[in-house]
Amino acid sequence: MTKIINIKERVLSENDRLAAEIRKKLAARRIVSLNLVSSPGSGKTSLLERTLETLKDRMSLALIAGDVQTENDANRLIKAGGKAVRPIVTGGACHLDARMITRVLDEMDIDRIEILFIENVGNLVCPSGYDLGEDMKVALISTTEGDDKPLKYPAMFRRASAMVINKIDLLGLSDFDIERVKKNALQINGNLRIFETSCRTGAGLESWYEWLKKLVAGKKL
Amino acid sequence: MTKIINIKERVLSENDRLAAEIRKKLAARRIVSLNLVSSPGSGKTSLLERTLETLKDRMSLALIAGDVQTENDANRLIKAGGKAVRPIVTGGACHLDARMITRVLDEMDIDRIEILFIENVGNLVCPSGYDLGEDMKVALISTTEGDDKPLKYPAMFRRASAMVINKIDLLGLSDFDIERVKKNALQINGNLRIFETSCRTGAGLESWYEWLKKLVAGKKL
Repeated sequence: MTKIINIKERVLSENDRLAAEIRKKLAARRIVSLNLVSSPGSGKTSLLERTLETLKDRMSLALIAGDVQTENDANRLIKAGGKAVRPIVTGGACHLDARMITRVLDEMDIDRIEILFIENVGNLVCPSGYDLGEDMKVALISTTEGDDKPLKYPAMFRRASAMVINKIDLLGLSDFDIERVKKNALQINGNLRIFETSCRTGAGLESWYEWLKKLVAGKKL
Repeated sequence: MTKIINIKERVLSENDRLAAEIRKKLAARRIVSLNLVSSPGSGKTSLLERTLETLKDRMSLALIAGDVQTENDANRLIKAGGKAVRPIVTGGACHLDARMITRVLDEMDIDRIEILFIENVGNLVCPSGYDLGEDMKVALISTTEGDDKPLKYPAMFRRASAMVINKIDLLGLSDFDIERVKKNALQINGNLRIFETSCRTGAGLESWYEWLKKLVAGKKL
């Protein structure tokens, strides 16, 4: 078992090295980079669709969409007007890693990009361990999941800088308690910036957009 | 990289060896064993709660509930009347493996058990690769997720024997198309037994219970 752990550590340190290079590359271009993580079905692609539709004419956005199989998510994002959209099909792997991002970034023209969104594989466990060189992780949770998710998957919520509580239009149709989920999340990570959204109705998205704009403005200071 | 893959293969073959031992042990006692897999929040614990409440006086049920952190799920199942409930906290690991099950089974009195439910970690990727010695995998999907999940996570649906489409009370509140999800799932695995349920309203649960009873009866032939 020791041997396995050592090799796992070596893989992770190689990942960290590549992530540091990505971070440097993005910083040189003052690009805001967000790594979106969640369970399958929390609405990462929907949030990115709405964001693209609303901001694409005002900002220069790029997206990397990871999936285990199919390019469905990337195709939805291209349909929503994304010009700089790149799919990564992991072919079974349960998370993106820095090597995959490096390879895709090498083929993209990112010189004028303001925000790079990375949509990770839908999985609340494995992606938490892999730095992709991003500025921040954004964890999504939907109101149709359990409100104890932050306690059950603490690594993800501890490493995230923001949490988006999505599908608030479905509040009241299950036992999900929005105050409880916020309390649980803040117990794990007191610095979380929290958004409450419905990608279906559009509720709450304005403050998400405002936050993105502030992140971009911050990079230009 | 070859080295890593070889070690991964060795871990998997050790898992298969332990899984075969579990399978033998359960078969000797004619125990039906089901490994429940899904995204976080699809309703595995809710389905088991309802099943316990309804069947506990008619059948002898045991449950192993896996979670990354917390024993929340196991506690819910004990509250629902489960007597033979054992938690496994994986402490970060994204799936259960046969070694964890072996260790727990060794401490359980399973001589009179008719069904053993194993609730895997909420994750549609990693648990698909680990045989736990179960008779069948049951994959849950809820109507608040995307109906393309079987295409995006094909390994899981290919290895499952049954699929439970849960939260049918929320049909119509999103773009989820129940006919499309069934078509997608059957395209991946034409042998899937499909159930449509709402653990909230109880809809569709009768045929799930009937199926469980038939599985138990089948073991006694």
